[in-house]
Amino acid sequence: MIQPSYGRLRGLVAATYTPFHEDGAVDEARVAPMVDHLIRQQMSAFYVLGSTGEGISLTSDERKSAAAAFVAATAGRIPVIVQVGAESLVAARDLASHAQQIGADAISAVCPVYFKPDSIEALVDSMAVVASGAPDLPFYYYHIPAATGQTLSPLAFFQLAMARIPNLRGIKFTAPAVQDYQACVELGGDDYEVLWGLDEMLLSGLTAGGIAAVGSTYNYAPAVYHHVLSAYHQGNLEEAIRWQSRSQQLVRAFVPYGPRAAQKAIMKMIGQDCGPSRLPIRPLTPQAYDSLRNELEAIGFFDWSQMPEVAESSAAG
Amino acid sequence: MIQPSYGRLRGLVAATYTPFHEDGAVDEARVAPMVDHLIRQQMSAFYVLGSTGEGISLTSDERKSAAAAFVAATAGRIPVIVQVGAESLVAARDLASHAQQIGADAISAVCPVYFKPDSIEALVDSMAVVASGAPDLPFYYYHIPAATGQTLSPLAFFQLAMARIPNLRGIKFTAPAVQDYQACVELGGDDYEVLWGLDEMLLSGLTAGGIAAVGSTYNYAPAVYHHVLSAYHQGNLEEAIRWQSRSQQLVRAFVPYGPRAAQKAIMKMIGQDCGPSRLPIRPLTPQAYDSLRNELEAIGFFDWSQMPEVAESSAAG
Amino acid sequence: MIQPSYGRLRGLVAATYTPFHEDGAVDEARVAPMVDHLIRQQMSAFYVLGSTGEGISLTSDERKSAAAAFVAATAGRIPVIVQVGAESLVAARDLASHAQQIGADAISAVCPVYFKPDSIEALVDSMAVVASGAPDLPFYYYHIPAATGQTLSPLAFFQLAMARIPNLRGIKFTAPAVQDYQACVELGGDDYEVLWGLDEMLLSGLTAGGIAAVGSTYNYAPAVYHHVLSAYHQGNLEEAIRWQSRSQQLVRAFVPYGPRAAQKAIMKMIGQDCGPSRLPIRPLTPQAYDSLRNELEAIGFFDWSQMPEVAESSAAG
Amino acid sequence: MIQPSYGRLRGLVAATYTPFHEDGAVDEARVAPMVDHLIRQQMSAFYVLGSTGEGISLTSDERKSAAAAFVAATAGRIPVIVQVGAESLVAARDLASHAQQIGADAISAVCPVYFKPDSIEALVDSMAVVASGAPDLPFYYYHIPAATGQTLSPLAFFQLAMARIPNLRGIKFTAPAVQDYQACVELGGDDYEVLWGLDEMLLSGLTAGGIAAVGSTYNYAPAVYHHVLSAYHQGNLEEAIRWQSRSQQLVRAFVPYGPRAAQKAIMKMIGQDCGPSRLPIRPLTPQAYDSLRNELEAIGFFDWSQMPEVAESSAAG
Repeated sequence: MIQPSYGRLRGLVAATYTPFHEDGAVDEARVAPMVDHLIRQQMSAFYVLGSTGEGISLTSDERKSAAAAFVAATAGRIPVIVQVGAESLVAARDLASHAQQIGADAISAVCPVYFKPDSIEALVDSMAVVASGAPDLPFYYYHIPAATGQTLSPLAFFQLAMARIPNLRGIKFTAPAVQDYQACVELGGDDYEVLWGLDEMLLSGLTAGGIAAVGSTYNYAPAVYHHVLSAYHQGNLEEAIRWQSRSQQLVRAFVPYGPRAAQKAIMKMIGQDCGPSRLPIRPLTPQAYDSLRNELEAIGFFDWSQMPEVAESSAAG
Repeated sequence: MIQPSYGRLRGLVAATYTPFHEDGAVDEARVAPMVDHLIRQQMSAFYVLGSTGEGISLTSDERKSAAAAFVAATAGRIPVIVQVGAESLVAARDLASHAQQIGADAISAVCPVYFKPDSIEALVDSMAVVASGAPDLPFYYYHIPAATGQTLSPLAFFQLAMARIPNLRGIKFTAPAVQDYQACVELGGDDYEVLWGLDEMLLSGLTAGGIAAVGSTYNYAPAVYHHVLSAYHQGNLEEAIRWQSRSQQLVRAFVPYGPRAAQKAIMKMIGQDCGPSRLPIRPLTPQAYDSLRNELEAIGFFDWSQMPEVAESSAAG
Repeated sequence: MIQPSYGRLRGLVAATYTPFHEDGAVDEARVAPMVDHLIRQQMSAFYVLGSTGEGISLTSDERKSAAAAFVAATAGRIPVIVQVGAESLVAARDLASHAQQIGADAISAVCPVYFKPDSIEALVDSMAVVASGAPDLPFYYYHIPAATGQTLSPLAFFQLAMARIPNLRGIKFTAPAVQDYQACVELGGDDYEVLWGLDEMLLSGLTAGGIAAVGSTYNYAPAVYHHVLSAYHQGNLEEAIRWQSRSQQLVRAFVPYGPRAAQKAIMKMIGQDCGPSRLPIRPLTPQAYDSLRNELEAIGFFDWSQMPEVAESSAAG
Repeated sequence: MIQPSYGRLRGLVAATYTPFHEDGAVDEARVAPMVDHLIRQQMSAFYVLGSTGEGISLTSDERKSAAAAFVAATAGRIPVIVQVGAESLVAARDLASHAQQIGADAISAVCPVYFKPDSIEALVDSMAVVASGAPDLPFYYYHIPAATGQTLSPLAFFQLAMARIPNLRGIKFTAPAVQDYQACVELGGDDYEVLWGLDEMLLSGLTAGGIAAVGSTYNYAPAVYHHVLSAYHQGNLEEAIRWQSRSQQLVRAFVPYGPRAAQKAIMKMIGQDCGPSRLPIRPLTPQAYDSLRNELEAIGFFDWSQMPEVAESSAAG
């Protein structure tokens, strides 16, 4: 277990989008304004180049360059966690080293997917290779079975990894098995962190002991989740449930359009254009874009998704 | 939508075990004492012959006979919901008719599994056949994708079934997709009921608007869940989370032994012997039985699982 | 291992349809003419009430009655194998006993699906219960993982079942893992039979040592498969491949319409109307029926699917 | 469709292992002797850096270097196909360009796995990006759903890709759906090639019209498959089935040890040491190595797996 420079994460961590040009090249110029916007929206950290950031669709060079752009733009205002997982563990370790060199605050990694580690031992050994590339940074294992197909118990991983990965800091837990999440939270105690990863089930994560959550919808609907959190902490569960319901309406609205491409479209709709998604994720057609915007309007999304002050500054900008 | 005789379900609904003799025959003599015990443990209803009750492993005649035994033993003290789902919809409809004849309070059904309905239309049509067998009873669709493999959206089912199944009352929802659960709860409003079905995630169900839950572990660890409920309703989430953690420890302890057989073993351990499970579910070996009891002792299960008064009465009996 | 009355199965075994009235009731009057037709089409045995026969969608009484109708109509001309698998092993055993009483030649059974046997031991124990209901009849385990979700090794089952199930005769093997099929064929040797179950891969079964195959498309495209078999046995593989290709064109044509309902529609198209499928399998709409017929005409299905003599008798009738 | 320099592939294509040092670094010195050995064993082409070659576990630089080593060592004696698939399509395209520069004969690619193309359009668009990196080389789409989870129809892909990917040459088809394979073979006709990819089902591929096959076991059991092929082409199916059975015995022997690590161990056993597998694939323990060797000895593997002349040359070397 390693002590992070940034203390204990709390609240909302934005799993950031990677801005692209129309031709798919990384559009680094868009990083800084997006970072500023998200910090104004009270994000407590960034998780860059994960599933939301299409990290695995980038080359190693593109990943390094994009990570550096996020670290530079954030400039220490909030922590930056760089996702470095890759099919090649040697490539992932190299990305980890780079993250440490550029001053990132932490790293995180999914396991290989094509050759899935087939035992807890193999999973821990594999993640140890990655973590060893950035020995001074806290390491979070990224558990997301819907994307990786990796169904080995995160709890069993956690138990063994504590002994074998010196800079292990915790888990980014993106799965609906709340009982496993709570077990990891309890095992981790005060020395580790287990970040909740399902936006539409944030309340489930909170009532399992979670205190920080990483998500994609936090980028463009921060007000929803800040309300969930504040209502929850004030003991007003009815209000928390009401806001969680809005989160779920939002997710139900965009999922049929292809969740990843649709969310980049939503970023554009709220004035934070970060370009299209990149193959193998096809961007929305103009018709789909309009249709999605109409559906979001119908549920009032544009009225209740942004924090008040930010809505103003966005209008001003 | 049909008005049940029993008002709105609240609290814990026991998914009851079906007692068997050693040779697998239904042991009806054990029904009445088990029913009395569970009512003393403050169950608010019974859900009989579901997954916990191995209903689908019984012949139609056995199911009818067992259902009648539960209805007779309960004698109207709390509602009895009879699960009548079967591969043959005609058989299921016949079980539904029988349930109505014997004075059951409601029926419920899983969809066929071997030939899974392959569209929402087919699913609703299939469930309509079953529900038509007991037109005077409330009908709950039983959504349990881990057992049925039926992945069609329960929300889409609910929307269409409201229009097509006159006695539809709601859904027994046994899946970790809390966002879908909450959507069903909201759609159902005051006119329908959506019963939560994952014991180890009860708090997630509550923070999605649930007010009643059906489960197997409620049979032998009622204190755990009564504490979850009362702490939750008092706004003491920390306490609720602590009790939910015990539920999860319990589940982690028995799952490796084969969850269905192991739970019947636990019933015996707490003095509510309902015999072994029946093939295709093999009962625990004596060695496994002892090992499981030791593990449960190690986590204190026998100290914190029962309601106080019942512990006494059980000791007396 | 038990010696069947009928010697070793060879060639095509029709997995028969169960005729239904429009309201879903079994239409026994249609059994005899269908049986006669299929015998004229040179089927070497019948496999009744399996997946094709929607056996599991019938009540136990309906299954008994339908099995008796097939046995009576066949009148010993070719063997009749009755599929008796059910979620309830007690019900399945009872169906097995009935099959023996009515003079069926053999029984077969899928394993329970809702509660899948979770070890080879549990699977063998479960099938032993079923087989014990008809101790004088040969028993075939029905391996069809796409329908049952049962992924336990059929080879491991076969090895243990040989020692534990006295009347075991073999396996109906419906899966594309040809290497497992061949291993079972080799293990079975001359004392057992392993029936191939994928029509569109019949040649794969033959080149793994198979000599008999059970299928649904044999009912309405017998000429295709008789040509595959005769060409194969004459060493004319090119010709065998050409006919297998027609089988595959046929399957590709009807699968998009819902394979089970579509095949009953095809029976009607060739003049062997056996009524609609039954819920949970919705029958084709009239539009879909016409569209499918057009597609089949376009590939020449009605020209090459029937054996010559039968085409005549059908034209006469 | 592009005309390859090497004419139509026939017979056995070795999916080659990538030799590693004990520390996991690529051991290029071992490439040349392995290549010579495999050519003496009458391989008709090499498929390098695919699943067998752990290509996706290497960095881009390592992949380029290893591909160059294979091309150089082969020196035009037989064609070399380089597998360039990667999570990042830009990285894959770059690997394709490199393959063309170094004089490889063809390229092939799996689709991305983490973000699986979710429509035929997206799949074709994605593969078009990769193929465009080597416009002068034939391109084979690598269909291997057990590894990629990509279940979109290879036939539908083929139909659309013919129109959109100018250098499309065919498909490496690694799945047991023989009917889909045959449909692709027929669609491809003389202008395209569809390579069969399941060693233990080689006969199924042949009787679906296949004439070339890519596999891992061809590296160390070439005699088995040369016998299958020659017996098949002589019309001696009994003999072909007998040799196919040995292939299946072999596969059953090593699969329980972890198929990828075990096969590298077998390479060492036959005197073609190419080092251990690399994480995330853990190599065999010494105990497992000995146990596997004993099992292979028990089935006679070392007596019947090698071509006669090569066995001598290997003994001499």
